[in-house]
Amino acid sequence: MAAALALGERGRGRTAPNPNVGCVLVRDGRVVGRGWTQPGGRPHAEAVALAEAGEAARGATAYVTLEPCAHVSPRGPACSDLLVAAGVARVVCALRDPDPRTAGGGFARLQAAGISVAPGCGEKQARQAMAGFLMRQRLGRPHVTLKLALSLDGAMALADGRSRWITGPEARAHTHLERSRHEAILVGRGTLEADAPALDVRLAGLEPRSPRRVLLSAGPDVPGWERIAAPGDIAELHNVDHLMVEGGPATAAAFLHADLVDRLLLYRAPILVGGGRTLPAIGLDDLSEAHGRWRLADERRLGNDHLHLYLRERKE
Amino acid sequence: MAAALALGERGRGRTAPNPNVGCVLVRDGRVVGRGWTQPGGRPHAEAVALAEAGEAARGATAYVTLEPCAHVSPRGPACSDLLVAAGVARVVCALRDPDPRTAGGGFARLQAAGISVAPGCGEKQARQAMAGFLMRQRLGRPHVTLKLALSLDGAMALADGRSRWITGPEARAHTHLERSRHEAILVGRGTLEADAPALDVRLAGLEPRSPRRVLLSAGPDVPGWERIAAPGDIAELHNVDHLMVEGGPATAAAFLHADLVDRLLLYRAPILVGGGRTLPAIGLDDLSEAHGRWRLADERRLGNDHLHLYLRERKE
Repeated sequence: MAAALALGERGRGRTAPNPNVGCVLVRDGRVVGRGWTQPGGRPHAEAVALAEAGEAARGATAYVTLEPCAHVSPRGPACSDLLVAAGVARVVCALRDPDPRTAGGGFARLQAAGISVAPGCGEKQARQAMAGFLMRQRLGRPHVTLKLALSLDGAMALADGRSRWITGPEARAHTHLERSRHEAILVGRGTLEADAPALDVRLAGLEPRSPRRVLLSAGPDVPGWERIAAPGDIAELHNVDHLMVEGGPATAAAFLHADLVDRLLLYRAPILVGGGRTLPAIGLDDLSEAHGRWRLADERRLGNDHLHLYLRERKE
Repeated sequence: MAAALALGERGRGRTAPNPNVGCVLVRDGRVVGRGWTQPGGRPHAEAVALAEAGEAARGATAYVTLEPCAHVSPRGPACSDLLVAAGVARVVCALRDPDPRTAGGGFARLQAAGISVAPGCGEKQARQAMAGFLMRQRLGRPHVTLKLALSLDGAMALADGRSRWITGPEARAHTHLERSRHEAILVGRGTLEADAPALDVRLAGLEPRSPRRVLLSAGPDVPGWERIAAPGDIAELHNVDHLMVEGGPATAAAFLHADLVDRLLLYRAPILVGGGRTLPAIGLDDLSEAHGRWRLADERRLGNDHLHLYLRERKE
């Protein structure tokens, strides 16, 4: 399942509105097929893996990160039917598909055909891996990552707005990798006018994965940019399941105030700035309200800097 | 030597103007004496260890974190003479004593008496362990630790000054332990008036180690508090080799602006505040000046919080 999850990660940020699924086919202890959902959302991971395996799929076990779909679409057949037709013996699955067109229907089709189904393996990791799809299914909006590059004292820039550079080249390269995992990146008008950021992915081989650019602004439109007027409008962004917010302090505060940040990427440089631009008010009345919202999920050194990844704790 | 350094740590914050030395005597593979410099600076570590060993010191190896002193004082004999008289065979030492009254003279006395001397063992750790004494010898001022309790976005308090609580009980207990390792703690008038802090050590068994209280203020005097008018006046604090600065944002900025912080204790809570009180200007003109000043020396989890310890990188 870990291998299937890793394959699914390859599609992250490019499969919307479909989930970034991964699939591994194993027969007699050997991997006979590997697949992940392709850019644009088709073909699905199972179809890719089955095509690779061919006849070897007969009697194999399929490890899939999401319940195989039960609905036939104009863009392709139902994966549960494909698995039945290929003669797969067993399906190990991380997560039930919340899409009402499947929602248990995939498992039912497999079982009706005599295939053994084992759900729930690696469920927690799968929830992380497909957070964008799940958020869109559950709340009808993209999963939002807020990226901040900060000094020890929380400065995102000097008082006059200069922010080159708080963090070092390793942290900036990591930001570019993160960009490639999102369908779109958003900044505010202040950042657009101060930096005219390209927001592209400047990593060898990943240039084609540069995400769409979104501006948070009441207007006017800017060529090359999509535009939304308020954080709450992110639901309207078509085929965006993963949104990365890279704007300045005001944009960050707007998303935090609206409680629309699910994942916090903090790149922290070992410097003190003093009197710099820090996060403006986010609607907090008392310190007690601030606690219990963020859970540390990952931390690592990036050159001289530190990356801390926090996830918003929400009741399901 | 690690054992000797650990013993020396027991005196940290209570031996000024003398260094917090540790000493272990070993004969035939067995520890026969242990000592550390006592509160007020006397007796010295070597004298304590020799007294514990008695006749067993004859032929032993002494592990001492600092060169044994060569000067007789009204408060006690020279440790190098004591080691000679006790018949110690060998002295392993971490650091040469920069005090001009010794400065190699201790080693010379030992060698003149036929004792083998091995200097430089654990020198780096010893420099850390006796940073207060060494700073006083070199620059004539205490070693300064700045403690900050911060949110992820660098807030030390809400906009209205409330700061209870940013960090949790484990981080606050650690602060109390740190207090016990300093002769004095300093706050600014703002903190005094807002919080009337006791600045005592509220840890079972360590209450008697509560440090002296110092106020950074142009005046007037406050009963129970010593007072200095500016950070640069810390040199005047009598018998203070370790000073902990616990004041609010303005006090922290004053010490950083004067480049009088040697050690930075950052307690970081996993919360976002937004619009809180952050570090004011510290005299930085460009971000490039900010880099290369602070080196991460330690990090650990304290409950939900993180402690990061940074040391100021200075040319010796």
